[in-house]
Amino acid sequence: MVCTIQIKEKPVLKDPVLIEGLPGIGFVANIATLHLIRELHAELFAEIHSASFQDLAVTARNGEARFPACELYYHRGSKGQERDLIILYGNTQALTTFGQYELCGKVLDIAQNMGCNYVITLGGLLREEKLSEPKLYCAASDQETLKEALNLGAEIIEGQVFGIAGLLVGLCKLWDMEGFCLLAETPGFYPDLAAARQVLNAISKMLQLTVDMDRLDSTAKTTTDILESFGLVFQPPDDKRRNERHSWHV
Amino acid sequence: MVCTIQIKEKPVLKDPVLIEGLPGIGFVANIATLHLIRELHAELFAEIHSASFQDLAVTARNGEARFPACELYYHRGSKGQERDLIILYGNTQALTTFGQYELCGKVLDIAQNMGCNYVITLGGLLREEKLSEPKLYCAASDQETLKEALNLGAEIIEGQVFGIAGLLVGLCKLWDMEGFCLLAETPGFYPDLAAARQVLNAISKMLQLTVDMDRLDSTAKTTTDILESFGLVFQPPDDKRRNERHSWHV
Amino acid sequence: MVCTIQIKEKPVLKDPVLIEGLPGIGFVANIATLHLIRELHAELFAEIHSASFQDLAVTARNGEARFPACELYYHRGSKGQERDLIILYGNTQALTTFGQYELCGKVLDIAQNMGCNYVITLGGLLREEKLSEPKLYCAASDQETLKEALNLGAEIIEGQVFGIAGLLVGLCKLWDMEGFCLLAETPGFYPDLAAARQVLNAISKMLQLTVDMDRLDSTAKTTTDILESFGLVFQPPDDKRRNERHSWHV
Amino acid sequence: MVCTIQIKEKPVLKDPVLIEGLPGIGFVANIATLHLIRELHAELFAEIHSASFQDLAVTARNGEARFPACELYYHRGSKGQERDLIILYGNTQALTTFGQYELCGKVLDIAQNMGCNYVITLGGLLREEKLSEPKLYCAASDQETLKEALNLGAEIIEGQVFGIAGLLVGLCKLWDMEGFCLLAETPGFYPDLAAARQVLNAISKMLQLTVDMDRLDSTAKTTTDILESFGLVFQPPDDKRRNERHSWHV
Repeated sequence: MVCTIQIKEKPVLKDPVLIEGLPGIGFVANIATLHLIRELHAELFAEIHSASFQDLAVTARNGEARFPACELYYHRGSKGQERDLIILYGNTQALTTFGQYELCGKVLDIAQNMGCNYVITLGGLLREEKLSEPKLYCAASDQETLKEALNLGAEIIEGQVFGIAGLLVGLCKLWDMEGFCLLAETPGFYPDLAAARQVLNAISKMLQLTVDMDRLDSTAKTTTDILESFGLVFQPPDDKRRNERHSWHV
Repeated sequence: MVCTIQIKEKPVLKDPVLIEGLPGIGFVANIATLHLIRELHAELFAEIHSASFQDLAVTARNGEARFPACELYYHRGSKGQERDLIILYGNTQALTTFGQYELCGKVLDIAQNMGCNYVITLGGLLREEKLSEPKLYCAASDQETLKEALNLGAEIIEGQVFGIAGLLVGLCKLWDMEGFCLLAETPGFYPDLAAARQVLNAISKMLQLTVDMDRLDSTAKTTTDILESFGLVFQPPDDKRRNERHSWHV
Repeated sequence: MVCTIQIKEKPVLKDPVLIEGLPGIGFVANIATLHLIRELHAELFAEIHSASFQDLAVTARNGEARFPACELYYHRGSKGQERDLIILYGNTQALTTFGQYELCGKVLDIAQNMGCNYVITLGGLLREEKLSEPKLYCAASDQETLKEALNLGAEIIEGQVFGIAGLLVGLCKLWDMEGFCLLAETPGFYPDLAAARQVLNAISKMLQLTVDMDRLDSTAKTTTDILESFGLVFQPPDDKRRNERHSWHV
Repeated sequence: MVCTIQIKEKPVLKDPVLIEGLPGIGFVANIATLHLIRELHAELFAEIHSASFQDLAVTARNGEARFPACELYYHRGSKGQERDLIILYGNTQALTTFGQYELCGKVLDIAQNMGCNYVITLGGLLREEKLSEPKLYCAASDQETLKEALNLGAEIIEGQVFGIAGLLVGLCKLWDMEGFCLLAETPGFYPDLAAARQVLNAISKMLQLTVDMDRLDSTAKTTTDILESFGLVFQPPDDKRRNERHSWHV
């Protein structure tokens, strides 16, 4: 097996937007997309496994073994203006550059096949201090799409966007798709609730999604627990919550 | 050559259980499966070589060159209750994540093709001190299978299971198989007889296998010799047995 | 995706020369080929993306995301003596040895398919000090081709030519092509205008190209900006121009 | 390109022996096989290039670019008893484990296709001091073949044989071939004339080859020059011969 996709359902969607939310800086995208999945009751329709993910299993409290995977969810916009969504969620990016390109290629193939022409990647932009009101930054595949991101109150990033958040927007042009990445400032090494809130607010407004933010704190905790179980994030040493583990069912 | 399988025989088995025993923490699985192969007179039916194994040969006392390989053995349960087995044994895991996924995929393909629906992986769980009566820990593909592991007296692992012991249980769900991993506490860096005994007792009971434990000490010595020859384990400096080498024929 | 080529146009050329100009020591080749593309108004006809390039996107001042890519341009010699050209330009070499071989193979396939039999690779030869009049060095696929390089005033390199500049000349023999590499002395860690001028003068003379050198300074600045954006070159700490960023449109 | 073979000639041989001589410890095999090629006037019949070799070119004194490659030569035994030979010679092994397996597989395929059933790999066995009369060590694919190696005055190696010398003997069993490796003691980091002489004497006797040893010193110098040019061996700092470079044509 190299990079395999298991399709569980083939939903018919109308001009869906692909939103990427794999673990990365500040785990901003990971919190934000898990929250979308929970609040919009998005449906799992595909699982992605890759030989470029870690070779381990982790166990949940209930003893079930899980292992590194990405998942694709869909949401059918229920109201007139709400956009249909494809959400890329998971507990890992690929470990190698090669695996990252392969993963992006597979995801773009599936999305395009479902009529998707628009990609939004989320993430964090590393800052030295924690900020109560993180600012948003963006980069886009083209000038037209950039305007849409700027309309969300984001400024232009000058520099590099590492990992899948950058690669997917860079690559989408090869698939004749458009897209932008939206990054919130974050100190970066710990799942960052404030940064996730910023990107969620922005894309909810743009895509006319009705997302309750009250439970975002709970989503951030779940994200932390999942990522800790995969060794991707560590509790700060003074954190007393270490012993309180939360279930991490999506 | 990438990952190649040489099938020597195609035994017809009845609902066999796959038991994984490649070298890992405490070499628990490696000792335990070698002991099963010896005591049950399991038959070699396939050899696996992979470009992801080490590129060296080692020589035995008798001058014959051997090189990194995994092997598949079968055992036909001779009594009414005894389960048929497929045993994955070898002197190496793959060196790369990619190679590990590939190896697991090939093994699961073969096992499924022989009617196997159930995977048990063995291993060690790292502890700082040596324990005379190591406890058992488990994780499983699903709740039903977990119960079977808990019935063996194991507790639920919370955390990560690295390498093939974790990966094979994580992956078996993609093949629509069930399975659990069973780990014994071990200080880990030396072949651990006590830990191997614990896992062997547990799976022998579950699978109704009649396995004489008297020669387990000799199996652990053989395992140490093989693994030393591949540079995977070192005698502690004060160990006077360094000069007594034992034959390592399986 | 592994190493993919997008052909935008299939120009008919007459016995074209392939000139390689990817980023390398002193970024000599990168400056020189960008200058050829600009001054000769060479046309982009193919883009190359590879899973062996970096997995990031970079943003220009205008907010557009770009990502690691190589490009092929052509120039149809407008005067009697001027040679037709295929120019390999880009913002990256491959990150792995494997990727380098793959990239070279693809480029040689395309070039050969367009009737090309002659390869010139450009580059820098590392020296400890900056030299106002850098000397040229060469190595060639065969004695006949070597003479042509020596006629440009180059001396024979004794030693190793790393990366694509060496590999492409070494490999071209497998495609039954001829070629040489032409390296200018350079202190190497910063885009080197003087070294680029030397190689450009030499190949312009040989290939009868009319190239205005007045704007070479501007080309070197553009090259620096592009490479900085990909994290491949850093401004020296005392460089006050850090804040003046230039557009890096080719 | 991955691992490609260019066959220049398909010689018909009678039960040839494959002798491996790629650069390794003490460059024993590399000197010995170059000497066989020169003294027996063996003919080049195939070239092997691989994306797992280094990505560079090196230049000879005469300005010609060469790059990492392996070559296959044949020798048709001219006298009654002299064995036909296939000689694997080159300036590199593969850089990765994966590449080593791939290279060995290709070489064994070709050799088997030419009627070869017997593999001899040469090499050095690392010792702390230089020895005027290095002893020989061996390991073999089976007991019958081991006897032939022991008859050459070699002792059994106990331990690991790294790289192609070990891998090729380990793998040849998968091709239903027999073989042994023959290693001479060497301090290892510099091309070792004395060790090369030992292995050459031994295999010349066994295979009834008439090989003049007078020019072995010159062969060792050529080997040193080639390997230096590829950065694989360095002159000791007090070595005054650094400036006298020798041509390294085979």
